[in-house]
Amino acid sequence: MNRVRRSESDPVGSESSGPLRLLRETHEERVLSVLRTRGPLSRAQLAEQTNLSRATLSSIVQTLLNKLALVEAREVGAVRGRGRPVSVVSLNPAGGLALGIDLGQRRIQVTISNVAHEFVASGAVACADRTPWTRRLQLALDLVDDLTTRHDISLIALAGVGVGIVGPVSTEGSSGVGRSADRIALVRDTLRARFGVPVHVDNNTRLAALAEAVWGAGAGVDSALYLRLSYGVGGGIVLGGRLLAGAGGAAGELGHISVDRDGPACSCGGRGCLERYVSLTTLQEQSENVLDARDDKARDLLAVAGARVGEVLAAACNTVNPEVVVIGGELAETGDHLFKPLQTAFRRHTHSQVHRSVRITRAALGPDAAARGGIALVLTSSPASPNAVLNAPDLEASHP
Amino acid sequence: MNRVRRSESDPVGSESSGPLRLLRETHEERVLSVLRTRGPLSRAQLAEQTNLSRATLSSIVQTLLNKLALVEAREVGAVRGRGRPVSVVSLNPAGGLALGIDLGQRRIQVTISNVAHEFVASGAVACADRTPWTRRLQLALDLVDDLTTRHDISLIALAGVGVGIVGPVSTEGSSGVGRSADRIALVRDTLRARFGVPVHVDNNTRLAALAEAVWGAGAGVDSALYLRLSYGVGGGIVLGGRLLAGAGGAAGELGHISVDRDGPACSCGGRGCLERYVSLTTLQEQSENVLDARDDKARDLLAVAGARVGEVLAAACNTVNPEVVVIGGELAETGDHLFKPLQTAFRRHTHSQVHRSVRITRAALGPDAAARGGIALVLTSSPASPNAVLNAPDLEASHP
Repeated sequence: MNRVRRSESDPVGSESSGPLRLLRETHEERVLSVLRTRGPLSRAQLAEQTNLSRATLSSIVQTLLNKLALVEAREVGAVRGRGRPVSVVSLNPAGGLALGIDLGQRRIQVTISNVAHEFVASGAVACADRTPWTRRLQLALDLVDDLTTRHDISLIALAGVGVGIVGPVSTEGSSGVGRSADRIALVRDTLRARFGVPVHVDNNTRLAALAEAVWGAGAGVDSALYLRLSYGVGGGIVLGGRLLAGAGGAAGELGHISVDRDGPACSCGGRGCLERYVSLTTLQEQSENVLDARDDKARDLLAVAGARVGEVLAAACNTVNPEVVVIGGELAETGDHLFKPLQTAFRRHTHSQVHRSVRITRAALGPDAAARGGIALVLTSSPASPNAVLNAPDLEASHP
Repeated sequence: MNRVRRSESDPVGSESSGPLRLLRETHEERVLSVLRTRGPLSRAQLAEQTNLSRATLSSIVQTLLNKLALVEAREVGAVRGRGRPVSVVSLNPAGGLALGIDLGQRRIQVTISNVAHEFVASGAVACADRTPWTRRLQLALDLVDDLTTRHDISLIALAGVGVGIVGPVSTEGSSGVGRSADRIALVRDTLRARFGVPVHVDNNTRLAALAEAVWGAGAGVDSALYLRLSYGVGGGIVLGGRLLAGAGGAAGELGHISVDRDGPACSCGGRGCLERYVSLTTLQEQSENVLDARDDKARDLLAVAGARVGEVLAAACNTVNPEVVVIGGELAETGDHLFKPLQTAFRRHTHSQVHRSVRITRAALGPDAAARGGIALVLTSSPASPNAVLNAPDLEASHP
């Protein structure tokens, strides 16, 4: 057993006894885990997030910088005209990659980032509505090959793959029902065989919600509700940095909240679902130019759609009372034509305590949001490690 | 520095070095925290909940039994005609008390439990609708005196007080708006001055939700949505054993989800709120006997009310997709007259993935649910301790 040595610059001893080393490793893992989940942080932010004293943190960060597990950099975005640029630490970009794939209805997107939250490559291909899933997967794999070749990226340090698919996915992507379960198994098995790393699968709209909460319009808030208004209408809820899955994998299915109790039956099993009234598919049946705000008919359609969306958001926000509501999809790009009637209906149907505390905003990310969400899923999942992250290690298991 | 000794019965050493002792203390605190939150558990359940190996757990439990921090008992409820009674461990009932107070609209309830989740005294007094808050507090304090005298209870080991009040309470009971903030400050200051322990304040319907999730119809599930149908209509959401507060303290305000977009204005600021249609106040204006199922008019009213409640629950469940929906309050006691139309409307307006995964059930606890929820709030809050519970200790802070 080594003796514990202490000095000013290394208060807890770098050559330490077994249990002391274990405790220190726990702290190192806490720092690594926070940086992996949140991206580059200043030392002050890191101290707050890890709940470690400045002195302990300083020693831990120094050790990790020496080991090249971390790197130090100037935060580019922090300059903003006042104050000095802030020094931030992040995981070493060479420490690993995460691959995000969105197997969308009409579009396959692949995005690659490193563990320092730097996006290093991104690409997409269109596909037909009814493209079989094996073919969609092949398109995604071809895209991965293309991107890694063009950008000279080696996937040897790939940490995991996060995949967005259409339709509900149960808790932790572990199951689905009928065809959905088959699809999830196909995606997971194919990608696991190809890359040999953990594969996380979730609904692609939910992944877009997660990406908006990590990098987009909901960055830095504790609770965000996301609604996507496109050919389909879906959503997702992020609480404390994690997606709410729901018991049946259907949390955030805001497109299937009813806006007319006697409305038409929906394929989901419900009746009068929001999606039937405000999806781009439905609206384009009424006016081909619905996204063109110069068109009178389009403006009328958007006003009614905005009111219906506002009512559904009111019901959802009276339920979870999030800090921010993020609205994405093509319809959100019509701006005030949708948002003004939406806000009016929202205010009219929410508890004052709810609408006082919530901010409604447009999505900040582009069409790669779901693929980025796949990356977020990889980065927020614990890396394979002999010690549990964020928990004290089990003495017996890790120190026999 | 003591030498680390190891033996078969005490694999990690009871007289140990500083850091080893710290790690061991972390494990002990993990065990104590889980038992405080969940109540008596078998060793198998405890191993699962603490994520400790059976060997480590066995040693930790033995030490804590020796210290009288824990006691061992036969689980009464586990006999159930088959198998042997299961041996459970719990915190020592002498280890402390928790006081739950419900300052309801028409009723003051006080309930006292020990840290082993045993309820040791409970009582209530009625009060008029407009009783001032200072008077309500005095009634509660008189009731505490009465109960402790009658049951010979000493509050010297009181760990905390949890209080339910009417109206929204922001995150962690730290603030409110206007009169609500004043009320919360009055309650907290009065009780802190009287008992000298931490005082937790939350909305009393939310506390009833928490109690149902810990001891009632939602016990053992990961996500529960609670709806209370009484003179007012409110609710609460419990995820992973914790109440969802919401950004403005209004999560679970299901009584203010709109069922008629052009309905009458509500004092909450919304319009066509569920509460306006199904509160006992409204229903009794239409029939004094609304709770009497032998009355034709009552049955018709309950059928319509059930349908409206089912629609609102559908919207809420499409949003959070909980495992169980628990319905409490006087209206729930009418049974199938309410539940049948409720279930029909619910099924008609939910995504199939949602209604397949959710169970709707009546509340299991009585009128002391909110006071019990106050107790749950005390027991699920970290006890004041030099080391953070469920987190590895900060070496600097706890081992200078």
